[in-house]
Amino acid sequence: MDRREVRYTDVFDETIAMLGNGGLLLASTKRSGESNLMTIGWGTIGIIWSKPEMVVLVRPSRYTYEFIEDSGEFTVNVPTPDMAKFVLFCGTNSGRDVDKLATFDIATTPGQKVSSITIDACPIVYECRVSHKNDVIPEELLGDIVSSYYSEGDFHRVYFGEIVGTYAR
Amino acid sequence: MDRREVRYTDVFDETIAMLGNGGLLLASTKRSGESNLMTIGWGTIGIIWSKPEMVVLVRPSRYTYEFIEDSGEFTVNVPTPDMAKFVLFCGTNSGRDVDKLATFDIATTPGQKVSSITIDACPIVYECRVSHKNDVIPEELLGDIVSSYYSEGDFHRVYFGEIVGTYAR
Repeated sequence: MDRREVRYTDVFDETIAMLGNGGLLLASTKRSGESNLMTIGWGTIGIIWSKPEMVVLVRPSRYTYEFIEDSGEFTVNVPTPDMAKFVLFCGTNSGRDVDKLATFDIATTPGQKVSSITIDACPIVYECRVSHKNDVIPEELLGDIVSSYYSEGDFHRVYFGEIVGTYAR
Repeated sequence: MDRREVRYTDVFDETIAMLGNGGLLLASTKRSGESNLMTIGWGTIGIIWSKPEMVVLVRPSRYTYEFIEDSGEFTVNVPTPDMAKFVLFCGTNSGRDVDKLATFDIATTPGQKVSSITIDACPIVYECRVSHKNDVIPEELLGDIVSSYYSEGDFHRVYFGEIVGTYAR
């Protein structure tokens, strides 16, 4: 891969821009070697426990959930605008039903500091190790958020991932 | 105040820089009008529930905790390096014992979109409304984080605050 290590703060703008414009690709690889990825439109970046951390939310019903639970790590891959079709596909199909990577002939490479795959076509990649996880609590969430996003329940698990490496080209 | 509204992404770099260099000032004003502030060195910024959100952590033992619980809002004020003495004071003293603002003769102004005070001397201010809160779960936290930061328990409450306004000069 031709990406080089950068500071996580250097690529925040591009990351947030794509987060709000189709989404980012969250990938995780099980200890067995199996990988899956999904599209996320939500996440935060900063410092917690004196380390760079990325907070991402995954519903327990999602196939990716069991990959992160198994591996304790994930990568967040920032796509280019011309990957929009693949990003949309990953956000509307489950890895239980279809091999997302094979369908679009997407090349991947294991992370440099984690075993989870990274998406070669993505210019920015964050490699994260789960340092903490808790859950969205229905009773503590604003009512309009519950009705907008949780009409069927399935409240998110919140993963706090230490950013152990950030890479960009 | 001579601060003007900016995009929250425009001031991320300065915010993270000060977060890791002495800390930011987290303030909240109760419905009764009483205010308190504390120093935070941890927090994340991004998008959750399709809104700009800032995630901050407050230990239940902290005096500021009861202010945020009462008001459901807070401001995050990014100090200048020359405010280091005040920032350190706010991080090592409790508002239960001393009036931090009066001691340093610090001027404040209510937020534009929240009632909580903002610190006039701070060039960047985020105004936030709590959209969700949950807690750090001891059993789900890496062991070395527990021993480094929670030897006395007092696990943080996690506040997810919608950024309803960002202002900078």
